[in-house]
Amino acid sequence: MIKKYYLLSPGPTPIPEEVLREAAKPIIHHRTPEFSRNFMDTVEGLKYVFQTEQDVYILASSGTGAMEAAVVNILSHGDRVLSINAGKFGARWSHICRAYGIHVKEILLRWGETCSKEKVKKELGTHPDVKAVLTTLSETSTGAVFDIEGFGEIVAKTDALLVVDGISGIGATPCPMDDWNVDVMISGSQKSFMTPPGLAYIAFSTKAWTMIQNSSLPKFYFDAVAAMKAMEKKTSPWTPATSLILQQRKALERIRKLTLEKLFEHHKILGDATRAGIQALGLELLAKPPGNILTAAKIPDGIDGVILIRLMHEKYRAYIAGAQAPHKGEFFRIAHLGYMGGFDIITALSAVEMTLSELGYDLEAGTSVSAAQNILKENWT
Amino acid sequence: MIKKYYLLSPGPTPIPEEVLREAAKPIIHHRTPEFSRNFMDTVEGLKYVFQTEQDVYILASSGTGAMEAAVVNILSHGDRVLSINAGKFGARWSHICRAYGIHVKEILLRWGETCSKEKVKKELGTHPDVKAVLTTLSETSTGAVFDIEGFGEIVAKTDALLVVDGISGIGATPCPMDDWNVDVMISGSQKSFMTPPGLAYIAFSTKAWTMIQNSSLPKFYFDAVAAMKAMEKKTSPWTPATSLILQQRKALERIRKLTLEKLFEHHKILGDATRAGIQALGLELLAKPPGNILTAAKIPDGIDGVILIRLMHEKYRAYIAGAQAPHKGEFFRIAHLGYMGGFDIITALSAVEMTLSELGYDLEAGTSVSAAQNILKENWT
Repeated sequence: MIKKYYLLSPGPTPIPEEVLREAAKPIIHHRTPEFSRNFMDTVEGLKYVFQTEQDVYILASSGTGAMEAAVVNILSHGDRVLSINAGKFGARWSHICRAYGIHVKEILLRWGETCSKEKVKKELGTHPDVKAVLTTLSETSTGAVFDIEGFGEIVAKTDALLVVDGISGIGATPCPMDDWNVDVMISGSQKSFMTPPGLAYIAFSTKAWTMIQNSSLPKFYFDAVAAMKAMEKKTSPWTPATSLILQQRKALERIRKLTLEKLFEHHKILGDATRAGIQALGLELLAKPPGNILTAAKIPDGIDGVILIRLMHEKYRAYIAGAQAPHKGEFFRIAHLGYMGGFDIITALSAVEMTLSELGYDLEAGTSVSAAQNILKENWT
Repeated sequence: MIKKYYLLSPGPTPIPEEVLREAAKPIIHHRTPEFSRNFMDTVEGLKYVFQTEQDVYILASSGTGAMEAAVVNILSHGDRVLSINAGKFGARWSHICRAYGIHVKEILLRWGETCSKEKVKKELGTHPDVKAVLTTLSETSTGAVFDIEGFGEIVAKTDALLVVDGISGIGATPCPMDDWNVDVMISGSQKSFMTPPGLAYIAFSTKAWTMIQNSSLPKFYFDAVAAMKAMEKKTSPWTPATSLILQQRKALERIRKLTLEKLFEHHKILGDATRAGIQALGLELLAKPPGNILTAAKIPDGIDGVILIRLMHEKYRAYIAGAQAPHKGEFFRIAHLGYMGGFDIITALSAVEMTLSELGYDLEAGTSVSAAQNILKENWT
């Protein structure tokens, strides 16, 4: 058989063809009115998806670069932050802060857990010197979605900033930046933005800009003030990744046409279908509560999770993500963010069934697929 | 007339069609053997162009990001550096160092000048505590090419590191990293690497790695140790800009087939032709000595340089770079790096002639073109 490749991972995600083709156009110079028009169109589209009146800055970097940009622009030597760590990317906030000598108070949770707003309120009460609460909208390592709205209610009443890693969540699950009092929001091109990796996005609230004025951490490439001054001239301070920006502009056209509301519904249906499929197989969901960005399912006893992922990839060419260290082999992750349709979920579940069965797990072929079909059929409008 | 667009700037530069098309392919996941093979092919190609046995790290950033990566990885709080500033990008080294509290001793030169190795020797003698000499291979703001070989002879005899911004120079003019004792070499995808902007490259000598072990400046996204550890697993520490890397891999195939030696000759011929054309028009070259990456020519008296560039761009759709602040309007820059052929030089000179003439400069149409033709014809083998 021809081994066709199916990308079913939570980033990078598949790219619509008209977005791929955008990158094959001859390059235009970035200091021209033509490019500035495209650049500002992209900024407008990003503001729509972030649901903010603030400018969204476009960085040539991975999402981790935008996380570092958040930290170095708002904080100062000796500051204390509250970091909610319930997975690989929550942990990254703490790592970045420690690299800059910031004192980190962590709410450390098991992978798959989320955090109540009461817990945040209690920690802020105990540590009134906390300058920022660092958290994640959708923890890509587990699929858990956090209560950003609740955190926003709590943090807005303090002097601290709410900083949200929305890298995989924004665009697939609701998180209106302004309405929910998010002070620093970041995201990346390769998730729900339907664009290849290489761009990261960051926006700051008015409250955050006040802290930026007083921040003493060193920075240059990620300097928000330089980005803000460049934005006044409809450009970025350093050479922008022009071809990726043109791709993002094209993808944002599609996103705006679909509307955020429809996208959120779409990803919820895909999430419901995936969860129904997983549960029909008798597998346990990892995240409590699970989000609509991706679904992590625990590997059943007696199956080697690393071999499952490798076999699925090598034999069936279906690329579903495994679990990251230190939980390697413990669960798998089916993505339903970005440019994913109903039959991508069917493909993913089918590949899981075929591989599990090959590894000796007792199941009836089609069990998860039919459960997912029922959800998809009901909602296929 | 159909207004066809001609990109004749020193970055971004035109992209070969087979490289453009590479970005239109469906995306593959970056944590797979397939991507790792492409990634390591790219690293090998970059090592060839850098002329080094050291690994070359691929950053998702603009060239400025790689400059910051050089500074934060080798230096420590309170260190002193020697920065050679003869243009916008030499000045950028000083700005980045100052942002991190590094003491900067500058050799400040006029734009267009270069620096003798004796001057570097003298400064290092006066300031034996200098930890690094920061300089530029080709100063993109002026076209001047610096004596990296000479600097290498001097700096290698000291404990200091030689750090070279080779962003526009590498691949177009000789600068063998290992043979010339360069300790930190950086470059970027959008110059002679024939790839769109968005990737930056950095390599460190063994001497540099010793300083990296002791560096106390804060860093996370640009951490060289993280990059080194990831390279052992044939990947990058953060999500790589996969589509740009596949483009760079394809462009490096072309570069290796052409060979560096042929490319250096090619760019020298284009440089000779451009200089002959400029001088035939009675215009003065800015850089002394001029390099083969780009040619800057002073705007003649009575002509407004800003209007010249704008008219050339708006009317003739030929995008030739002007002078950057604080020298705006004083000169223009014709690029001959990257994927440029003989007739691109003819186009650039022709556009200059037509625009100068329209602005009232007295010239005979074809003067610069015929001077350039003579050089090109002699060498067209």
